[in-house]
Amino acid sequence: MKIRVGLIGLGTVGSGVLDLLEQHRAFFTKELGFDFEVVAICSRSQARLDRFKARAPWATRDPLALAANPNVDVIVEVAGGDTHPKAWLESAFAHKKHVVTANKALLAKHGKELFPLAAKQGCFLLFEAAVGGGIPIIRTLQESFIGNDIHGLACIINGTCNYILTEMTRGKLPFATALQRAQELGYAEADPAFDIEGTDSAHKVALLASLCYGRRVDVEDMSVEGITSVSAMDIEMAEELGFCIKLLGTVSQDKQGRIQADVYPALLEKRHQLATVDGVLNAVFLKTSAVGPLLLTGAGAGKLPTASSVISDLVALARQLATGNPKPMNMGFFADAHHAKLLPIDELETEFYLRLTAVDKPGVLAKVTAILGEEGISIRALMQKPEHDPENVPVIFLTHTAKNAHVRRALQRIDALDIIRAPTQVIRFYK
Amino acid sequence: MKIRVGLIGLGTVGSGVLDLLEQHRAFFTKELGFDFEVVAICSRSQARLDRFKARAPWATRDPLALAANPNVDVIVEVAGGDTHPKAWLESAFAHKKHVVTANKALLAKHGKELFPLAAKQGCFLLFEAAVGGGIPIIRTLQESFIGNDIHGLACIINGTCNYILTEMTRGKLPFATALQRAQELGYAEADPAFDIEGTDSAHKVALLASLCYGRRVDVEDMSVEGITSVSAMDIEMAEELGFCIKLLGTVSQDKQGRIQADVYPALLEKRHQLATVDGVLNAVFLKTSAVGPLLLTGAGAGKLPTASSVISDLVALARQLATGNPKPMNMGFFADAHHAKLLPIDELETEFYLRLTAVDKPGVLAKVTAILGEEGISIRALMQKPEHDPENVPVIFLTHTAKNAHVRRALQRIDALDIIRAPTQVIRFYK
Repeated sequence: MKIRVGLIGLGTVGSGVLDLLEQHRAFFTKELGFDFEVVAICSRSQARLDRFKARAPWATRDPLALAANPNVDVIVEVAGGDTHPKAWLESAFAHKKHVVTANKALLAKHGKELFPLAAKQGCFLLFEAAVGGGIPIIRTLQESFIGNDIHGLACIINGTCNYILTEMTRGKLPFATALQRAQELGYAEADPAFDIEGTDSAHKVALLASLCYGRRVDVEDMSVEGITSVSAMDIEMAEELGFCIKLLGTVSQDKQGRIQADVYPALLEKRHQLATVDGVLNAVFLKTSAVGPLLLTGAGAGKLPTASSVISDLVALARQLATGNPKPMNMGFFADAHHAKLLPIDELETEFYLRLTAVDKPGVLAKVTAILGEEGISIRALMQKPEHDPENVPVIFLTHTAKNAHVRRALQRIDALDIIRAPTQVIRFYK
Repeated sequence: MKIRVGLIGLGTVGSGVLDLLEQHRAFFTKELGFDFEVVAICSRSQARLDRFKARAPWATRDPLALAANPNVDVIVEVAGGDTHPKAWLESAFAHKKHVVTANKALLAKHGKELFPLAAKQGCFLLFEAAVGGGIPIIRTLQESFIGNDIHGLACIINGTCNYILTEMTRGKLPFATALQRAQELGYAEADPAFDIEGTDSAHKVALLASLCYGRRVDVEDMSVEGITSVSAMDIEMAEELGFCIKLLGTVSQDKQGRIQADVYPALLEKRHQLATVDGVLNAVFLKTSAVGPLLLTGAGAGKLPTASSVISDLVALARQLATGNPKPMNMGFFADAHHAKLLPIDELETEFYLRLTAVDKPGVLAKVTAILGEEGISIRALMQKPEHDPENVPVIFLTHTAKNAHVRRALQRIDALDIIRAPTQVIRFYK
């Protein structure tokens, strides 16, 4: 069976898709019976079109023209961005074409319109490549673990942030130096905000949370923190306590059915399986009702890992097309009626690491502990580093489980004290 | 769509399948449109049939009667054993029924007949539950990584052995004590031979190797060692060297296309991702062309993890049945024409750990090193433990990469020396 592919986007991932389809074409044809032919390519860059034009019979700079091309059965969208691709996919579905995409920003923002539209048109909208690069997390949640309730998910889902935190830990480097190194190695963009502020992670976590609980989680409802405020001192203190700091996406559901979906730098016990996931690696840790804990670790980005997931979606689609009566999965939970109610961040309860910056004066601890006590926050441990500037002494408090709102209220009062020299650093523990 | 399930086997896994199907029945019906009804159950134990008879309208002690029951669409075989189930599956396929099985021994031994028969009859034969319990390794190899060449696979695939080795390491216990503890906890059978001699691992590795390279690997062609010869001293020496000892299944392919598929206790660097997989956990580590390394870690056995994989196969089957024109995957590589030629174990090249037991006399090392030199084996390191019985001094040699046949020949000569008091222990390194 011939499957005619139209490819939008000829950047890193797009060229990887072309490479893998060409490398495996004979194998797919012979062993699976699926002949994937790239019949159309599209890039807004004329230079890229020129470079790749020998690899497809038809090339265009207009994605909408490709979406309408009657020779195309399935569109692979790996251009990125979240505004324009929405119109391309809408056109693709209007023309009854299936879509495979790696675009998490698009799906996190516009999944609520695109999934229902695909369903209405009888089209597949597949996105294994959108989350975790080559790690098969979408298929694991949707297919392998369909007989499980997901009790919780924690993931390291942005290689840039994980690389920076790993470098800060190994080299005792400040954030800025580690970021610069990541940029030199091509692990961070010239403008790194999208990664280091947690936005990219949030898009992926929103999709994962939606799949975990069958209700649509919107990025705008999530609590998202990046890693820009994590200091070398925080990492050093964490190490002394037997912890590391990782940017985690976490998802869970409480007894009232309220979903928690957050991105934040977390203190993670060093013996936790996620603690050994270093550098640009990604990982997803699932706590499930039947299988128990499962960890998937691998390359979360890059040309071929991401292209590999695109290919897996193309083959899954082909298996359905081969029946002559393809049945897309029910993704109805992305529709508006299934918008998830998230746990308000104020109501979050966890243990906290608080790093105060205080003057070295008698009575400081008395004042701070009094406020914490008045707000109902119980202290598990307290540490002071001796050898520091007496005007800027770091004092670390570890709390027992406390409500986020109470901690924030206490810190407003504490940070207003004249003995406090800088806003207190707050980092949550992950258990 | 109603899917009528017949269940053969009402032991641990069978009861787990019943539990999960009942727990999720409303969800599957509402969200997926698949109503799985268990219409028939079978156990050779009348006591079990009596215990479960309320959970299905029809019960029998005769698996062949269930295989022929016209009310059954799909048979779930979780009875175990490798002789009788072959006839049951043959009958099932003759009656055009699909099969989901957790039976690795059956498939490793009789896959060459069963897969072609299923294909001929247009039936599915699915087996996610047969390898790695709840870990989705079959789906990952067959679907997620279909666009990858597999450069290598290493797995910890038998929880009993991994538990015993973990206990020996943590508690500095001898093998027999750790085995006894595993038996007390229900992690090892009263007759543990099937696990500790590597047979169970070998069945699973044969299936994984076949999937990795699209050619059928037979257990009888593999080199299989268990863990019974691993001593507390070997583990202690490994620890000192920065290694641990794990029972690994390993699979790779050389430049001539010869497949290597072995089970053996291996010295594994402690910083390798597999080294942290402890206790009854299982893990599969893949080295792939596009995604690079991927690690999957989770519960490799047990009631609900295994049942979860059965459920995932049932849902995958239902998605195909829903099209009205189901297309089983091509499993033709299990047929006789695709029998893989394995690399002869004599030609294996790797680094070795050799533990000699010698008398404490001058000239011992000279004799041993002379033989190693004559056989072309280059020594990387040598260690003697001082405080021991002078009649039984352990001497450890670590070799550079050497051919297995040369090492075995050297050891025949060494072990024949009158200064050697016991057969030399040989453990391979895994890299």
